[in-house]
Amino acid sequence: MLVNKFEKDYLVVAQNASGRNMNVPLYRFKGSKPGPKVYIQSSIHGAEVQGNVVIYHLINTLKTTPICGEVTLVPNCNPVGTNIKAGEYTLGRFDPINGTNWNRGYYFDEALVERFVDTVDDEEPLEKVKSRFRKVLKQKIDEKLQETWGLGLAQQLNLKLQQLAFDADIVIDLHNGPVSTRHIYVPEYAKDSAKLFNIPHVILIPNTFAGALDEATFCHWWTLQNLLRAKRNSDINVDVEAFTLEMGSQEVISFDEGRYDADSILCYLGAKNCLESNTYFPKSMRRVAVTLDNYKILYTRQGGIVDYLAAPGDQVKKGQALARVLNVDELENDRASQVIEAPCDLIPILHFPSASVLSGTQLYKCFTDYFELTE
Amino acid sequence: MLVNKFEKDYLVVAQNASGRNMNVPLYRFKGSKPGPKVYIQSSIHGAEVQGNVVIYHLINTLKTTPICGEVTLVPNCNPVGTNIKAGEYTLGRFDPINGTNWNRGYYFDEALVERFVDTVDDEEPLEKVKSRFRKVLKQKIDEKLQETWGLGLAQQLNLKLQQLAFDADIVIDLHNGPVSTRHIYVPEYAKDSAKLFNIPHVILIPNTFAGALDEATFCHWWTLQNLLRAKRNSDINVDVEAFTLEMGSQEVISFDEGRYDADSILCYLGAKNCLESNTYFPKSMRRVAVTLDNYKILYTRQGGIVDYLAAPGDQVKKGQALARVLNVDELENDRASQVIEAPCDLIPILHFPSASVLSGTQLYKCFTDYFELTE
Amino acid sequence: MLVNKFEKDYLVVAQNASGRNMNVPLYRFKGSKPGPKVYIQSSIHGAEVQGNVVIYHLINTLKTTPICGEVTLVPNCNPVGTNIKAGEYTLGRFDPINGTNWNRGYYFDEALVERFVDTVDDEEPLEKVKSRFRKVLKQKIDEKLQETWGLGLAQQLNLKLQQLAFDADIVIDLHNGPVSTRHIYVPEYAKDSAKLFNIPHVILIPNTFAGALDEATFCHWWTLQNLLRAKRNSDINVDVEAFTLEMGSQEVISFDEGRYDADSILCYLGAKNCLESNTYFPKSMRRVAVTLDNYKILYTRQGGIVDYLAAPGDQVKKGQALARVLNVDELENDRASQVIEAPCDLIPILHFPSASVLSGTQLYKCFTDYFELTE
Amino acid sequence: MLVNKFEKDYLVVAQNASGRNMNVPLYRFKGSKPGPKVYIQSSIHGAEVQGNVVIYHLINTLKTTPICGEVTLVPNCNPVGTNIKAGEYTLGRFDPINGTNWNRGYYFDEALVERFVDTVDDEEPLEKVKSRFRKVLKQKIDEKLQETWGLGLAQQLNLKLQQLAFDADIVIDLHNGPVSTRHIYVPEYAKDSAKLFNIPHVILIPNTFAGALDEATFCHWWTLQNLLRAKRNSDINVDVEAFTLEMGSQEVISFDEGRYDADSILCYLGAKNCLESNTYFPKSMRRVAVTLDNYKILYTRQGGIVDYLAAPGDQVKKGQALARVLNVDELENDRASQVIEAPCDLIPILHFPSASVLSGTQLYKCFTDYFELTE
Repeated sequence: MLVNKFEKDYLVVAQNASGRNMNVPLYRFKGSKPGPKVYIQSSIHGAEVQGNVVIYHLINTLKTTPICGEVTLVPNCNPVGTNIKAGEYTLGRFDPINGTNWNRGYYFDEALVERFVDTVDDEEPLEKVKSRFRKVLKQKIDEKLQETWGLGLAQQLNLKLQQLAFDADIVIDLHNGPVSTRHIYVPEYAKDSAKLFNIPHVILIPNTFAGALDEATFCHWWTLQNLLRAKRNSDINVDVEAFTLEMGSQEVISFDEGRYDADSILCYLGAKNCLESNTYFPKSMRRVAVTLDNYKILYTRQGGIVDYLAAPGDQVKKGQALARVLNVDELENDRASQVIEAPCDLIPILHFPSASVLSGTQLYKCFTDYFELTE
Repeated sequence: MLVNKFEKDYLVVAQNASGRNMNVPLYRFKGSKPGPKVYIQSSIHGAEVQGNVVIYHLINTLKTTPICGEVTLVPNCNPVGTNIKAGEYTLGRFDPINGTNWNRGYYFDEALVERFVDTVDDEEPLEKVKSRFRKVLKQKIDEKLQETWGLGLAQQLNLKLQQLAFDADIVIDLHNGPVSTRHIYVPEYAKDSAKLFNIPHVILIPNTFAGALDEATFCHWWTLQNLLRAKRNSDINVDVEAFTLEMGSQEVISFDEGRYDADSILCYLGAKNCLESNTYFPKSMRRVAVTLDNYKILYTRQGGIVDYLAAPGDQVKKGQALARVLNVDELENDRASQVIEAPCDLIPILHFPSASVLSGTQLYKCFTDYFELTE
Repeated sequence: MLVNKFEKDYLVVAQNASGRNMNVPLYRFKGSKPGPKVYIQSSIHGAEVQGNVVIYHLINTLKTTPICGEVTLVPNCNPVGTNIKAGEYTLGRFDPINGTNWNRGYYFDEALVERFVDTVDDEEPLEKVKSRFRKVLKQKIDEKLQETWGLGLAQQLNLKLQQLAFDADIVIDLHNGPVSTRHIYVPEYAKDSAKLFNIPHVILIPNTFAGALDEATFCHWWTLQNLLRAKRNSDINVDVEAFTLEMGSQEVISFDEGRYDADSILCYLGAKNCLESNTYFPKSMRRVAVTLDNYKILYTRQGGIVDYLAAPGDQVKKGQALARVLNVDELENDRASQVIEAPCDLIPILHFPSASVLSGTQLYKCFTDYFELTE
Repeated sequence: MLVNKFEKDYLVVAQNASGRNMNVPLYRFKGSKPGPKVYIQSSIHGAEVQGNVVIYHLINTLKTTPICGEVTLVPNCNPVGTNIKAGEYTLGRFDPINGTNWNRGYYFDEALVERFVDTVDDEEPLEKVKSRFRKVLKQKIDEKLQETWGLGLAQQLNLKLQQLAFDADIVIDLHNGPVSTRHIYVPEYAKDSAKLFNIPHVILIPNTFAGALDEATFCHWWTLQNLLRAKRNSDINVDVEAFTLEMGSQEVISFDEGRYDADSILCYLGAKNCLESNTYFPKSMRRVAVTLDNYKILYTRQGGIVDYLAAPGDQVKKGQALARVLNVDELENDRASQVIEAPCDLIPILHFPSASVLSGTQLYKCFTDYFELTE
């Protein structure tokens, strides 16, 4: 017997060159008790497929675990990106036609929030404000989707997903890095929530919009909260959180690792009162964090083939070797092999997934000036 | 005998995975009389190759035509983009690794201009101000190129080219559209110069930076001019112009058409006193213009295969057929073929180069609310 | 009222990475009178989309034109190839994962024909022989499709289509060239049929299998006919024909040109007694032919950008210019531009679709030692 | 002081679209004593880069190790394939323009060997026969490279390399698999040599040509030997061997693993009297072998995302799980996850490098009916 109400649906997000609709499955669980609305999607970048395994495990758990509120799960949310191959790999990070990153076309409009706050009077209860705000924003996205001149494919896809996500109090976007260790993007105001996941590396991001789903969610709510606080001079909390989880490397899946990350998400959901009776608790572990401006990219200066010596998650000291580059054109002399050293103390979080690099390649992304999150 | 001094040089702009330098040829003509410095590059988008033919013709002309000042020509300025094939075509519009448009990584910093103007006193002659400004900006770009953490490939390429271009008084960036008729991007302040080229379609752009070379050039100078005018309360003119010329379709070249466009550029250069004795004069022709916000993209709502009925350059009335889309999945019923109509009076300037489209494809870019430029 | 029986069906040919079936529409018309079975497919190469337009017109005609026998139409028969974009173009000629040409995995087994003929006794009527032959071959393909270790995607796709095509007496495979004029591949034994189409360029092919659908059809039947003739010492005619039609260039469609080619096919079908009352007759036109070994590929020796001077269909004399190549690295000297001359009298049939070529590129495919087909 | 003579050279193998020569470095060591000629190349498939590291180590060793005869090393022998990126990975297995595998265009002509043997009289010493044979074959390749109509890029590249390789008595072609364990292709007649390398998996190949360098080498010599033996009725041995070494996975390098494989090659060279005083001896290890027809490919029947449970090199029993496939479209029911079982006892040697697969994907290549090579 199902412990929650369950429905499955499909969302049409595109039409391919054969004139066929491309749709995305939606799985929706509703508890019998009230509680937060949760929205979880995976694989907006088509080669980052491990989130689908996580959602598979979450579905299995939610079949037997009574929830409060509602959980919507949208696996494989980008059927275009998932299915573009070039060679053996998946060209999933951007639209192969125009280079548009599939995770940069969500909508945020600061002016819209400002105009909305002008319509809020001092007496309106917060829940009603939130509900009206959702309606206004979704109305605005509807209008954009109906524009006479149309919209680009990535933006259409993003806005259709954002319509669903904006109903939620909790939004989790499941990603992977190239060759990567687990890390999570957390808005600075929700820093305390970082400790509710079993993820050792935390990036704290400011109220700045760069196009991604987590930002498109929390920038709206964070801005609303700030304006309401100023207006009412009180410590209002809109209670909406959004995260991007990066759960290891792209192009691979593991059912076992997926169980770990599903449990990690259930720890967070349990703490947020999404489960009728919570049995998931975050692990005691060392968690280190950086502010976004200290999450740095090391680019190559030379082309060549790279032996990645530092593994994602390693603690590396300034001057230690990160990588060794072979120059096949100079194999007989002392320019044959060159070591790239850490420019400061750092933790490499991810590295480029191919040995072959041109100059100007994102070799490593690194935590610098990182600090420990206390429990 | 050469009528101008001539030198050829190479600029290293990248290193490939074989460890080899990738360089770009520079051709430089110096007249015996003083005059403007001109910088012309082509093929920053690797499939837009007609500009190389134009430069070939310009070189032939400049061998026998005495100039005032200096002309630097940089054909095929993106050796990476030119040489990435996927199927028979060239993947030249963006870095195939990360989707970065090759023409969006140039540098503009409004704050730097403001700080610079603070250093200008009321007595400093304009030529000296300009020369100092060039030095400051090139110094800044140098610093960026030396940053510890490095820079992405497209940005490195762009900045190395910008170093060269920023010396010039006239910057011309040669492009092609997908399937396209001739058009030109002109900064609003240089609108009068639009009539000096033999190009019938003109897009007038404001002082807003979106990453391209023409903008990176004129935004700096336009901003400087505005601030100096305000500061000195006089009608100062910095006399720097920058244009993007789109000379027909990508993936094809024509030596004959190249001669036409070389002559068109020589008309402009003649009018700007770059030639000792000018024999090139712009054609009398109808030129229509739009402001940038009226240069609109029509996206597809459906996927399918497209018969492009309206040719680039046609005058199309509201409601007229632009394209007819075949849906191969419904060939037997009345959804088989669907006509896409012009949403308003317009001139299609370019269209998508493949019959096969997904929903959300840039079908046409169109002039709307266009007007005639009077001679 | 429909003049023929009509049914539409779908054939599952693959499953994508989202776990979704990829299917192909089948349109089938059955006349009330007996007659040949016809099989027509299009777009096995995903960028060659004009055949879909031709099938659209054929469907419209067959709604109102009584036929004898049966016509099966399979447009867009390769849903994988149609939908792989890399840049703006369609990567449709080969599987992007492994380079396998989508039109080389059909099945032919000479030994199977030989073994089959051993089972034919002297009395067996030809129609019965043909029917048994079809059964044996389709049984064999079934077995291949069921093999324990599986089959590659292209071969699976090809064999599923071949199952359908092998029932037919007439097989027409609709293709396009890169930049191309109309031409048709005709098996030598069916040379007379070449004049039934409105196609000016004819390639006559021997009984040799290279993997394509037309060959996989006629090689089986041709071999059978030869063996039966030898065995029975009589002039047996199996009356099965198969053609590959190349109807102009890939990446573009035209509804008007499609009408022309649909009519051309109807001329052939009319002559073959597929129409109850034929009103389509081939045009009087000059038709030139070559044997396959005289259909030659001209490869580039140099890299550069190409102005294709000779248009497909032109008659070119030995020594005449075919193309002019620009070397962007040598624009200032006499190696800047180089003319590629015709090595003999020839007709270019198609050329490479991009101006940018490496050395070793298929520049032109040409008719050499061609001759006129007399009417 | 160098213990061998050393020279470095460059071979032009192609010209890119910028009109630039693409060349390949050649490193050549000559000992002061006579001995076999060795030819070693790497990275004909552009993403298989570990061979470059092996050659780097070999060069370092050969600087200080006196050799008999001559060793030619050609790293990174395909500068086109190495430098074609599509997404973050390298599109290195086939020409991105036409799908041609870079390792299938070498030359073999059985008839040429037969004609050559007709020219050998009974007295001609074997060394002279071999020397004439080399001359004849290289002459033939020269003619092909000069053909009026030209040759495709991959074939040009292959033939230019084959010109070098055909001088050698020992040819080693360094490759990698997708995700792979070490294995080696050995011609059946050289089976004993398999034990001279430190490679646990051996594929024994017959005298059949499929286009690769090792075959293009040994098929010529093997055929010559067979014909000479028949003609002279004696046990002639031409003493030429050729191997393809697959040293782990593509897209990664390791300097440490490279040392292992360099040493493995030195063991073989030592045993073949290429070193003045040999200090490299093969490891005692279990080596298993299969005949080529028992080296089988397991293709997927379904599309989905794959957890590769069996690692390359594992011994797997019939019925054991090889992989588990997730179908993201059916996450809530029992079709969500499906196990792919081994159809017989086998050792997986390599698997597909991406989790995302369509139906008809090469999931695993496996040793079946394998046997142990006794020492």
